[in-house]
Amino acid sequence: MSTVSAHEVAAMRRALDLARRGPHHGPNPRVGCVLLGADGETIGEGWHRGAGTPHAEVAALADAAQRRTSTRGSTAVVTLEPCDHTGRTGPCTAALLAAGVARVVVAVTDPNPLAAGGAERLRNQGVQVVTDVLADEGRALLGAWLPAVERDRPFVTLKIAASLDGRVAASDGSSRWITGEMARRHAHELRGQVGAIVVGTGTALRDDPSLSARTASGELSAHQPLRVVVGHREVPAGARLRGPGGDLVQVRSHDPADVLAALVEREVRHVLVEGGPTLATAFLRAGLVDEVHAYVAPVLLGAGPTAIGDLGIAGIADALRLVPTSVQPLGPDVLVVAVPTPVPTPPHQEA
Amino acid sequence: MSTVSAHEVAAMRRALDLARRGPHHGPNPRVGCVLLGADGETIGEGWHRGAGTPHAEVAALADAAQRRTSTRGSTAVVTLEPCDHTGRTGPCTAALLAAGVARVVVAVTDPNPLAAGGAERLRNQGVQVVTDVLADEGRALLGAWLPAVERDRPFVTLKIAASLDGRVAASDGSSRWITGEMARRHAHELRGQVGAIVVGTGTALRDDPSLSARTASGELSAHQPLRVVVGHREVPAGARLRGPGGDLVQVRSHDPADVLAALVEREVRHVLVEGGPTLATAFLRAGLVDEVHAYVAPVLLGAGPTAIGDLGIAGIADALRLVPTSVQPLGPDVLVVAVPTPVPTPPHQEA
Repeated sequence: MSTVSAHEVAAMRRALDLARRGPHHGPNPRVGCVLLGADGETIGEGWHRGAGTPHAEVAALADAAQRRTSTRGSTAVVTLEPCDHTGRTGPCTAALLAAGVARVVVAVTDPNPLAAGGAERLRNQGVQVVTDVLADEGRALLGAWLPAVERDRPFVTLKIAASLDGRVAASDGSSRWITGEMARRHAHELRGQVGAIVVGTGTALRDDPSLSARTASGELSAHQPLRVVVGHREVPAGARLRGPGGDLVQVRSHDPADVLAALVEREVRHVLVEGGPTLATAFLRAGLVDEVHAYVAPVLLGAGPTAIGDLGIAGIADALRLVPTSVQPLGPDVLVVAVPTPVPTPPHQEA
Repeated sequence: MSTVSAHEVAAMRRALDLARRGPHHGPNPRVGCVLLGADGETIGEGWHRGAGTPHAEVAALADAAQRRTSTRGSTAVVTLEPCDHTGRTGPCTAALLAAGVARVVVAVTDPNPLAAGGAERLRNQGVQVVTDVLADEGRALLGAWLPAVERDRPFVTLKIAASLDGRVAASDGSSRWITGEMARRHAHELRGQVGAIVVGTGTALRDDPSLSARTASGELSAHQPLRVVVGHREVPAGARLRGPGGDLVQVRSHDPADVLAALVEREVRHVLVEGGPTLATAFLRAGLVDEVHAYVAPVLLGAGPTAIGDLGIAGIADALRLVPTSVQPLGPDVLVVAVPTPVPTPPHQEA
């Protein structure tokens, strides 16, 4: 890696901040870009506002043009490797080359096989390219998008809301509410950041959930995730799932891989599996859970359905162990976020 | 309440510190005492070292005597109201009167009907008595002892160690270990502070636990709680429960009230109910759980016994709701300490 200037590192922090203005939930990543002039002064800024709108680099070039500043010989500081691909918009590499950008500083290289190769293309055209600048911050910003693109399927968050004794409902099936208001509000914020929410038909028919994302005041959030029902039974005409909220999709299969395939088609990067226990168990058994959000309420029920069904685990040695990444009290409840213990990958073989 | 001097408040803090040197687990409370001379100088200090040894006041008077300092007209600052009762030792009121103590400053008044009345006795003999000085700290110091004496039965802590999905063992019954080492060490520390540990015969026979308190290095702790097995089946001759550790007691009943009565006889103030689910459920159903320690491990099992059995709760509205008093990460696990929602007491009636 070549060295970068303090100006460029500062510009990358600014670019990360700009990127955060973009939407969390779309098919495209959040990206920010700052253009620096010869003296390190900012001559343009841009960020991606969502699918179908200009990429961050193009937005920054447009900003510079509006300021009537030349971009000849400038440096583009951008949080994700510029794309070299024509999708809804043209390739950013071409735009940067056309604008005479001489140097590009990148936080995260693009793992997307469709969009990747931008750095190489730029280098071949004589542009200096530096990568991995504030790469950790860049990856954190990308959130679920990065693993989704790497795995070529949506990142799967499994949500559990259970009592201390692991029940998701009382013995009569009633479950409103096990967790308190802060936990429920937190869950709605997460809904506002994902591309889709998935439930089984059992939950859809029994609980009649709306699966909408709502603000603290109860209004529908600006972004509504796709609502996905998994199974063969019909969602009745009057169901809340057909009311205000995101589009409703039914996947007539019980195989989690089919569910994710349907979501790949719709360019969903992050999916929230909300239950019930049958669906949660199917995703866990298929090894298709990337993260668990467990809201644990200080409540004892003693009976009622448990959060997770039979995983085929006989003895404690085979338990599905997770690694907690955060523990957060939410009013009386606790949110434990945990990821499955990664299967150890074999070390790279010597060539 | 009359006013107290800064000297006296400082002396009370010192008395609380002295009290902490005493044992956590015995039948007697932890008490500290500081004697102040006419100018607010310390002339004696004492604390209670456990049942059968002198009370804090008597220890402080002995300390003053050893220093060859007169206690005539002195002030005794003591964390608990001096007793007026002859038990294993004589009444402290008599010792204070004999020593010519002129004023007594108390943190917590004694709720023990046997020992109470000390303040009144002293006042009747012309001693100035001030109570409720740093009373909150004094109550915190007394821990389980205070509610135990108020309720005339041991304070009951129910321990649960469960997976995120509420299982205390895998489907084959194996449970070593669901929680990690830090959580287990924490549980051993608690064992070293209670008077007794209780398990059902089912757990005793299936898990063959030792129920001893051990230090971080695996040695037996100095104090070993009484080991109590509840039920009719015999504990076999070779069981670990008959090995190194506290005395073994069997209560041949399934009624938690009988268990507590047997412990009252043995002057146990704090009992730890460690399981299994049948016993835990019986204590919860009887309303005889004062505090729950739930160690929640980021583990999913999907099957196996749940922490708590049928509580007779049909709907979510009847859930047993607890109020968390602390949430503490312990390595990968989380300890949630919670107390049952108090049954609202009717306001005092006007006389």
